[in-house]
Amino acid sequence: MTEAPTTAALELWEEWPALSEEDRITRFRELPKHELNDFFLTLDPTEQAALVCGLPSSERVLWVRLLDPDDAVDMIQAASPHDRPALMDLLDEKTRTEVRALAAYEEDHAGGLMSPRFARVRPEMTVDEAIAYLRKQAGQVETIYYAYVLDAQQKLQGVISCRELFQAAGDRRVSEVMHANVISVLDDMDQESVGRVWVEQDLLAIPVVDHDGRMKGIITFDDMADVVREEATEDIQKMGGTEALAMPYMTAGILELVRKRAGWLSILFIGEMLTATAMAYYQDEIAAAVVLAVFLPLIISSGGNSGSQATTLVIRGMALGEVRIRDWPRVLGREVTVGLALGTVLGVLGLLRIVLWHSVAGSYGDHYLLLGMSVAISLVGVVLWGTVTGSMLPFVFRRLGFDPASASAPFVATLVDVTGLVIYFTVAGLLLRGTLL
Amino acid sequence: MTEAPTTAALELWEEWPALSEEDRITRFRELPKHELNDFFLTLDPTEQAALVCGLPSSERVLWVRLLDPDDAVDMIQAASPHDRPALMDLLDEKTRTEVRALAAYEEDHAGGLMSPRFARVRPEMTVDEAIAYLRKQAGQVETIYYAYVLDAQQKLQGVISCRELFQAAGDRRVSEVMHANVISVLDDMDQESVGRVWVEQDLLAIPVVDHDGRMKGIITFDDMADVVREEATEDIQKMGGTEALAMPYMTAGILELVRKRAGWLSILFIGEMLTATAMAYYQDEIAAAVVLAVFLPLIISSGGNSGSQATTLVIRGMALGEVRIRDWPRVLGREVTVGLALGTVLGVLGLLRIVLWHSVAGSYGDHYLLLGMSVAISLVGVVLWGTVTGSMLPFVFRRLGFDPASASAPFVATLVDVTGLVIYFTVAGLLLRGTLL
Repeated sequence: MTEAPTTAALELWEEWPALSEEDRITRFRELPKHELNDFFLTLDPTEQAALVCGLPSSERVLWVRLLDPDDAVDMIQAASPHDRPALMDLLDEKTRTEVRALAAYEEDHAGGLMSPRFARVRPEMTVDEAIAYLRKQAGQVETIYYAYVLDAQQKLQGVISCRELFQAAGDRRVSEVMHANVISVLDDMDQESVGRVWVEQDLLAIPVVDHDGRMKGIITFDDMADVVREEATEDIQKMGGTEALAMPYMTAGILELVRKRAGWLSILFIGEMLTATAMAYYQDEIAAAVVLAVFLPLIISSGGNSGSQATTLVIRGMALGEVRIRDWPRVLGREVTVGLALGTVLGVLGLLRIVLWHSVAGSYGDHYLLLGMSVAISLVGVVLWGTVTGSMLPFVFRRLGFDPASASAPFVATLVDVTGLVIYFTVAGLLLRGTLL
Repeated sequence: MTEAPTTAALELWEEWPALSEEDRITRFRELPKHELNDFFLTLDPTEQAALVCGLPSSERVLWVRLLDPDDAVDMIQAASPHDRPALMDLLDEKTRTEVRALAAYEEDHAGGLMSPRFARVRPEMTVDEAIAYLRKQAGQVETIYYAYVLDAQQKLQGVISCRELFQAAGDRRVSEVMHANVISVLDDMDQESVGRVWVEQDLLAIPVVDHDGRMKGIITFDDMADVVREEATEDIQKMGGTEALAMPYMTAGILELVRKRAGWLSILFIGEMLTATAMAYYQDEIAAAVVLAVFLPLIISSGGNSGSQATTLVIRGMALGEVRIRDWPRVLGREVTVGLALGTVLGVLGLLRIVLWHSVAGSYGDHYLLLGMSVAISLVGVVLWGTVTGSMLPFVFRRLGFDPASASAPFVATLVDVTGLVIYFTVAGLLLRGTLL
């Protein structure tokens, strides 16, 4: 955890993303001595690894030893496999043991996020003894804000905050003043769930226990904030119809960018080919009334747009825990109403457009009113369908075990495009049969 | 800040979003006594206001006084204007004064987020005196993790963490061991910028100062985490082509949902009307070769999808501070390359589709190869154009002072649809003149 950093390092921070690997090393070494530590600690693990591996070997040990064991694991795992053993050798004996233990956990599980260095007290200590004991530990733990109360088997019995210790009478026992019900997470819980617990509880640190209740470490708020932000970024990228980048946009290579985007884009393209198949089926209608083709992009895009709105709201609601899978009937009910209302708004706009355009330019022939009605009714149907599809797809994805965020705006649009044009040509076929068709 | 909450309240938490206002009040009052406080504190301000106003007046004062002044302001501002004076009257004198001062700040400025209750020490104190003084303040401040060093004019001179005080020798002066360069924010800084400072610095609390350097309060990590999450939600909702809801999806009324979505949907619809205008211009081409219309949805949607990918990556990069406005030429260079690569992938897929389909069903006539080439070349052009538009639009929005997140996937798709069909008919016109056209 960074403590009260200074302002001057912010300048290099500003320019950092645009600098080459070499420039970063040079500029870093030019920083005033008292800025170096804070600056190094605010870098992400990949940047730390690149920087350390670029420094002369005599300087490396200094930086590696600055890191707490949980951050050291992250940095070493971010380094190339080739560099890892050398980096491990730079650690002191105690940290190396801790790092080995942490590295055994999956990177995105609670165990992979935690630090084994937490403040502990015994239940039978007095408050004054506990404060004195905390003072001794202050240099070696990630945070002293919470003191965890462990029994002789290292099982978590309770927790007390530093502030509560301060407020309690000095001669009371820790076991009398501690909270006995502690929110904790299991060491194999995935980071998304840990993030949700953290966001709901506003805790500075969450204790991690194994399946026997033995305390293994803590996850501090700064690591949790990174997880929550990472998860939001992943969701956003998936919602935009691309694979999660898992690295900053500016540092991702061109090949990486193409790879992460070509997959989904090709899938969407192949899905969208169905529109060509469907269109071929309506070729006669188009040949008979070319004017129908004129409004096609307008109608199908409206379905895609309304679907994009609905899927976005539902996916984000799910990520925040506001929308649960069992809420789907309520969501469906709401979205049917919303879809009808939005479809009516666009239908009226569409009808107005055709009537006004016709009265000015006379472009749509004798049956312009029937054409306008076809467009308006199709819009209601397409927007309603887009809204319902967009709102339900995240539930379907979740049920099937996929990430609901993959029900992206482009994915919904593709689904709705095919059905949208079927709706349009069906409505037009019914209304215009005998006149335009 | 919530301290070590208990587990049992989690059950009601689970069911909370689906409960009616009345059920919430009943169920809340049925909770075991020792769960009540923690549960109340984890609710959001709107829920707290609804709950308090629904309780008998004799019980209200208990809950209102549980809140720190910054949370009390939020709750009172979330209540209906009618209920606010009564809620204010429930506060004790000291808190009421603090709440009035805080309410004068804009809700989304640093001053509106801060709590005036922070731990303070004097520079001339010894470490032992400072620890004893902190211990006295422990009951009245939001956090004792950082002690702020203020001079007689209340100007912020430095900061020292509780841990550092613990580690320092007891007889040293605070001024000798404190950090003199403190990261602080101005009281009128907007919350998005405060969030960015916080995310970069990983601080437990950020001090807020006025333009004279006098310390006014602190913003703690739990409030910052809410801000960061709120800003991500706003961005995601805008990126999905809707106005930010500013409330949970499930509690937003139907009318509210329609209102927040109809605006952008209508704007997109009116923009998309340009496709009808453009299409009217190509009516003769369509009449001559209806097969051209068959591939139209496929081609324009590919532009929209690739634009959606690009705009999403750039918008999120900007929100994280990874992409700055001056990076636009580099982004443009990258996206031109990526767009050409992605366009080529889709172009090849499109050509294959037409050649294979023709060899199986013979549906595209003698000039199927020319048709295939028109589709393939158009795809390269449309995808390139979509990628470039999608990646540059957030920069344009930012430059114009709009939120880059409003360069949503649907917005980009709408822009690209019109130009996409112009590209398609132009390419087809060049390649097919004398054969199909």
